[in-house]
Amino acid sequence: MTYRAPVSDILFTMRHVSGLDRALGEGLYDDLSTDLAATILEEAGRFANDVIAPLNREGDKHGAIFKDGVVTTAPGWKEAYAAWTDAGWNALPGPVGYGGQGLPVLLNSACVEMWNAASMAFGIGPVLTMGAIEALIAHGSEDLKSRYLEKLVSGEWTATMNLTEPQAGSDLAAIRTRAERVGDGTYRITGQKIFITYGEHDLTDNILHLVLARLPDAPAGTRGISLFLVPKFLPDGTRNDARCHSIEHKMGIHASPTCTMMFGDHGGAIGWLVGEENRGLACMFTMMNNARLAVGLQGVAIAERAYQQALAYAHERRQGRAIGSTQDGMSPIIEHPDVQRNLLTMKALTAAARAICYLTAEGIDRAHRDKDETSRRKGNERASLLTPVAKAFATDVGVEVASLGIQVHGGMGFIEETGAAQHLRDARIAPIYEGTNGIQAIDLVARKLPLSGGETVRTQIASMRATVTRVMKEGTPAFGATAPRLRDAIESLDRATGYLLKTVSSNAPAEALAGATPYLRLFALAQGGAALAEAALAANALMSGGDKDPAHASRIALCRFFAENIAVAAKGLEDTVLSGADFLRDASLALAS
Amino acid sequence: MTYRAPVSDILFTMRHVSGLDRALGEGLYDDLSTDLAATILEEAGRFANDVIAPLNREGDKHGAIFKDGVVTTAPGWKEAYAAWTDAGWNALPGPVGYGGQGLPVLLNSACVEMWNAASMAFGIGPVLTMGAIEALIAHGSEDLKSRYLEKLVSGEWTATMNLTEPQAGSDLAAIRTRAERVGDGTYRITGQKIFITYGEHDLTDNILHLVLARLPDAPAGTRGISLFLVPKFLPDGTRNDARCHSIEHKMGIHASPTCTMMFGDHGGAIGWLVGEENRGLACMFTMMNNARLAVGLQGVAIAERAYQQALAYAHERRQGRAIGSTQDGMSPIIEHPDVQRNLLTMKALTAAARAICYLTAEGIDRAHRDKDETSRRKGNERASLLTPVAKAFATDVGVEVASLGIQVHGGMGFIEETGAAQHLRDARIAPIYEGTNGIQAIDLVARKLPLSGGETVRTQIASMRATVTRVMKEGTPAFGATAPRLRDAIESLDRATGYLLKTVSSNAPAEALAGATPYLRLFALAQGGAALAEAALAANALMSGGDKDPAHASRIALCRFFAENIAVAAKGLEDTVLSGADFLRDASLALAS
Repeated sequence: MTYRAPVSDILFTMRHVSGLDRALGEGLYDDLSTDLAATILEEAGRFANDVIAPLNREGDKHGAIFKDGVVTTAPGWKEAYAAWTDAGWNALPGPVGYGGQGLPVLLNSACVEMWNAASMAFGIGPVLTMGAIEALIAHGSEDLKSRYLEKLVSGEWTATMNLTEPQAGSDLAAIRTRAERVGDGTYRITGQKIFITYGEHDLTDNILHLVLARLPDAPAGTRGISLFLVPKFLPDGTRNDARCHSIEHKMGIHASPTCTMMFGDHGGAIGWLVGEENRGLACMFTMMNNARLAVGLQGVAIAERAYQQALAYAHERRQGRAIGSTQDGMSPIIEHPDVQRNLLTMKALTAAARAICYLTAEGIDRAHRDKDETSRRKGNERASLLTPVAKAFATDVGVEVASLGIQVHGGMGFIEETGAAQHLRDARIAPIYEGTNGIQAIDLVARKLPLSGGETVRTQIASMRATVTRVMKEGTPAFGATAPRLRDAIESLDRATGYLLKTVSSNAPAEALAGATPYLRLFALAQGGAALAEAALAANALMSGGDKDPAHASRIALCRFFAENIAVAAKGLEDTVLSGADFLRDASLALAS
Repeated sequence: MTYRAPVSDILFTMRHVSGLDRALGEGLYDDLSTDLAATILEEAGRFANDVIAPLNREGDKHGAIFKDGVVTTAPGWKEAYAAWTDAGWNALPGPVGYGGQGLPVLLNSACVEMWNAASMAFGIGPVLTMGAIEALIAHGSEDLKSRYLEKLVSGEWTATMNLTEPQAGSDLAAIRTRAERVGDGTYRITGQKIFITYGEHDLTDNILHLVLARLPDAPAGTRGISLFLVPKFLPDGTRNDARCHSIEHKMGIHASPTCTMMFGDHGGAIGWLVGEENRGLACMFTMMNNARLAVGLQGVAIAERAYQQALAYAHERRQGRAIGSTQDGMSPIIEHPDVQRNLLTMKALTAAARAICYLTAEGIDRAHRDKDETSRRKGNERASLLTPVAKAFATDVGVEVASLGIQVHGGMGFIEETGAAQHLRDARIAPIYEGTNGIQAIDLVARKLPLSGGETVRTQIASMRATVTRVMKEGTPAFGATAPRLRDAIESLDRATGYLLKTVSSNAPAEALAGATPYLRLFALAQGGAALAEAALAANALMSGGDKDPAHASRIALCRFFAENIAVAAKGLEDTVLSGADFLRDASLALAS
């Protein structure tokens, strides 16, 4: 079972949930039209299905191979990457002035989902390159831009993000890699970085490393970190003193080389400053925010692929006779209620995660493209608010759905040849990298809720409420208990938000942080439910208008399932946020053995 | 980080939650005393820690190797198995008349937990042997018993369960393996079986296969299946026509060979009937029920091991500075509230799953040992009711806790050398084998709730209520909101139970089955919470009596965490059971792409 990009679902979500239609009407996306967007998505889907997806299993089995400092990717990967960049996919969101197509983040997000569904180990590489492009555009000197941006936009070269060191993971203040001023505008970089995705590979002739390091006179902590560009090959063609020491033996994404990088083992790697000295973390955050959305999209991607595979198996595999079956013999297992619950849970979670990621992408586009300054600011704050939710919820969903996918397969799910197990193994990294989901939850509560004095989150909740009010007015029986269930979830979110806004700025911030993870889930259930309701409302309107596409009724049924079977967890999550933090007092007691 | 058997927690749970003290007082366990039980557990813990646990990682890396029909286990496994049987551990629960020690299922369950925590791939083998012992005792002829029981009880030989065929997994009615009467009291067996755990290996000189097959004149369906004993080597020493064709390449438990077995490729494997013709399924269920408890214990085991490893890492790893920290520099991550939540969730789920499994074991002992017939019947029904909960909840917990364990490790969790990933890969099979967790949930709702007209489940709920009433009366501040939260959970369970009892016997059984999985989770939250409250009450009483063991306060804090942060999911689960089944009507619509 391979992957088939769900182009029409993706386009529907873009148009009716994340506001593509409205944005096109307002001219936010220049010459883009619905037809052009559809054509691009179709093409991307075909490429993902036909070129990348067939490599996924082989990439897992073969893995990337390290020998004598050289990383060789799995058979077929080099050719696939070349075909992918030749077709212009890497350049899709890139700036027009450097050979990019300048297309929206929203459209690219849909493509990122498809590349990663086809193969997460393939899709993660370009995510880093795109992050580096954004960092260079925002902070790079004209010299660096003119030297490197075109190569990165085309994908002729790739880039990496070198943050983590053995003692510095979530806490970048602990970074020890050193940078020394040479005096000629260059720096010498010395240190070790770990967990560097595609730090070394054979896909391209050169690799640009973005490296966080400290100057000798830098202040301690995060205000003393600078960002440097360290190319594998220098402009004069000589090899830089930046080498891959080894690659990791990982649970999943075997085809993506995860490198330990040594900078300056032979005197110092030559690097150029990006942005200002000691302001490296701010530059890095430019990369990280979009990378976080991209990792969220990986969660959506793996969930979609796992769902497709489980659905196909459930149609094909026969066991037992379903209640009410009119056929002789064993029924396809998809006819059994418990299997239906699993599949609907998979599909509904995937759709909700996708919607939240696309809403985030729309906010980013709004922040960059809207002519109105207030709209730009609001778009930026909305994207900031939603980014940790998109990253953490969607990647948790990736793991949950991949695990359910194994379950639907029964014993076959545990056999590697089936492919279902690989999805879980691959998915498991996404809640960890680009900031663990715990870090995302803390970011949401401690930094995002207080945006504009709480106005940003309150506006978002108001918009969820407005959606539910429309469902209530609709009165279509197919919606079932959608409105009351989602209303309950949103009110739970509202109360929990009020509590956290008060607590996080009080003298008890630890209590707010203790509830951060359940709060993020609660946020996602309310936001995801509202987003699926938007889709269902649009579908209902189209049906009323005579559109006979059966997918419309399916969207209403899926929204209803989410509201009645998944969003109902909201109250329990509210309880844990509001009073669950009492455990803090006795935590060390309870964890003593 | 290796495993340290949590002997005192285990003994405390046995004594104060699953009624060991009461049973000893009543003389249910013959000569067993608390001291003797403690000594046995200490010895078992030492063996698990020192002999088995060190093999776990190597077993994963090396795996079982198949070549030319021969399976070679990983280095050290043969010696460890020999030492384990020599020490008498296999014989612990076996019948005294056949060399066994006749010790309680409860005590053996604690040991089974420890073997599997040390290595799940090691622990699963003897589970099958013990199942075969039970089947032979209950259904085997005197001839078969005298020929084979002693060898199985000592562990000199092992046994397998041959149920699954490619077309017959959850649905055993579809079995095609054939058996023909020879006329001399033997049968010739022909067919293929898949997913046969330890179907072939080099640990012992002989392997006894219990095989489900059909006689030529057997009725169709499950009433035409018979059980046969098919030894690898016949009594005269010749090789039987039963061979391993290949082993699976699995996601986890690599050291446990999962075999495709071919019976009768060269004329027919010689087998002996166990029990009566066409009554094989009933015989198999004797094996399966206890095997289901054992698999539940695997879930507890892997959760415990994953928790220990994550806890150790959280003490050692430093990142960030915790709020309120009085120390300079980075804090151990265990001081961060979000990490504490993860660890407490892991510990609380593990403790709840353990308690439910041990309660099940106590029911089995009661069913076999009580002098009073009514008590035996009630014990049997209680064990029957709890078995699917123990199996499904504990194995789901195994997966959830192992996944959280990876998360606590951050990036290191995804690296295979760390060992955290192996726990998740190993744990993932347990919700599948011995009846998928979906099948367990259906068993609970369709067959176990109606026991004694619903009296069994109502008695169980009443006992949970009684525990909560005691917590309420206690009034100790350390219990926090334990009583109201658990009461809410139990009332949710009560309402959902009433609904299902009505629905499952009505003309809408599909609606009951649609809610089976969330109902099982709801049951486990209420039962698990009540069990932890029993432990906390006992701990509180001991503290009041002057016992200064800090573990007692820890038990109260853990119970409170479970009630306030985990059991609060109950209401949402009730909602899905009561009204969530509406999705059935539109399920095929929602799943259409």
